[in-house]
Amino acid sequence: MRLATLRTGPQHQRTVAARIEGDEAVILEAFADVGAVLAAEALQSARSVDGPRAKLDQAHFAPVVTRPGKILCVGMNYRAHVVEMGRAAPPHPALFAKWKESLIGAGEAIQLPPESRQVDWEGELAVIVGKRLRRADLLEAAEGIGGYTLMCDTSMRDWQYRSSQWMQGKTWEKSTPLGPWMATPDELADDAELTTAVDGQEVQRGRIADQVISPAGLISYVSTFITLEPGDVIATGTPGGVGHARRPPVYLKPGQEIEIEVTGIGRLSSNVANEAVPGP
Amino acid sequence: MRLATLRTGPQHQRTVAARIEGDEAVILEAFADVGAVLAAEALQSARSVDGPRAKLDQAHFAPVVTRPGKILCVGMNYRAHVVEMGRAAPPHPALFAKWKESLIGAGEAIQLPPESRQVDWEGELAVIVGKRLRRADLLEAAEGIGGYTLMCDTSMRDWQYRSSQWMQGKTWEKSTPLGPWMATPDELADDAELTTAVDGQEVQRGRIADQVISPAGLISYVSTFITLEPGDVIATGTPGGVGHARRPPVYLKPGQEIEIEVTGIGRLSSNVANEAVPGP
Repeated sequence: MRLATLRTGPQHQRTVAARIEGDEAVILEAFADVGAVLAAEALQSARSVDGPRAKLDQAHFAPVVTRPGKILCVGMNYRAHVVEMGRAAPPHPALFAKWKESLIGAGEAIQLPPESRQVDWEGELAVIVGKRLRRADLLEAAEGIGGYTLMCDTSMRDWQYRSSQWMQGKTWEKSTPLGPWMATPDELADDAELTTAVDGQEVQRGRIADQVISPAGLISYVSTFITLEPGDVIATGTPGGVGHARRPPVYLKPGQEIEIEVTGIGRLSSNVANEAVPGP
Repeated sequence: MRLATLRTGPQHQRTVAARIEGDEAVILEAFADVGAVLAAEALQSARSVDGPRAKLDQAHFAPVVTRPGKILCVGMNYRAHVVEMGRAAPPHPALFAKWKESLIGAGEAIQLPPESRQVDWEGELAVIVGKRLRRADLLEAAEGIGGYTLMCDTSMRDWQYRSSQWMQGKTWEKSTPLGPWMATPDELADDAELTTAVDGQEVQRGRIADQVISPAGLISYVSTFITLEPGDVIATGTPGGVGHARRPPVYLKPGQEIEIEVTGIGRLSSNVANEAVPGP
């Protein structure tokens, strides 16, 4: 099953959850977003409940969870990416945060702010937490996966490396597409691959099985120190092929299109645009 | 003016904002916490509105903002602390995140989890954002300060230094007292000092004027990359004297009491207790 969050209402001010069925979206009117479906433990009923239908090719996607309580990201979680960044595989995950204000929906433009000249792509599989979890073992963590989605962990490299802590390069306003939908765990193929393409040219390819720590492993680890809640998002890291590691380095330009795909989960397409900053 | 958030109801399940007047709390029944007062832009009316009164010495404090959208912390922001950690004053702030699940109120116990053996204190002045701000200059940032409070940025050093990213040592469940109240900016003394004492013995002392970046400077900086919202919290760093930098290092033990004080703002007292982890 695939569940999305769509923008609705006169100026797209509201959002609503929807189940994807072929080329249609079945509106789940009781839920403002997929996070609300998970918080209500309504994943089972969402499989069958009926509602108004909309054509998917006219839908406007919001971030699949619009206001996650937490967004955690992990660095260096594909063996191939660890190598290209010139590092050793870490004994523990390097975890950092993103804030909800950085999220955008599939099809919404990644904003290139005037303050950064080194905006880079990082295609990622993101796991959405489905249950409240604390000190979950691997089995509990696996059962606590609500589903998977795709994220571009857009990274302002000049800001990321201004200090030892990466957050300020990782959470720029409206920089992080999350979607287009959440696919339940049964949809992730065993041999799933993640690919990222910029303007149709493949720049990243990695096998999910190449992850240093699995999605359930990350959930279990994080739940050691903090309670995870339904709708919380953990981005599971990016494989090799980021622009910053190329020689010479390559960064995103306005007008480009990024496509991130994971076998069985779906494809997230985003265009890149210069941010229009209001004058003083 | 000082505003607190108090626990109320049969099992303290609810919270309510209150104005402190001498040894009494005037309950502001319309607001669940100080964050709600700020979000409603109700700081002015909170100065005069009347309500039921409660004795302050019987009050149970919640985190002054119970569910801040963002909690950002800054490392190495007092010149003296930079020196003791063996580092150079950074050209840019090192920013990291805490999640709301780590917050507790004044008088609630800091939990020592069984997974860490290096739990350390960091007494801090925290600034609470009062207005929505993006790309705020220093003047706008100063005018956007809702008030100040105190925080113990309790740090599990063994987890903080497991990877390059500090977050996992900084956001343990129920580890971070925030309170006891928010004092409006006029209450911060010009020559304010921050002190931390453990079991009555002073371990940290720093002048707020020794900060590398001022509270308004931090707000302005963060607002460059993300929108700040009323109730967001920025902890402004800790002065010299943390336990991890001592030779030999010193860590917190159950039964100890930590008191953090800033001239004009107030005193935050917290006891330390071993966490009672439920069995399997």
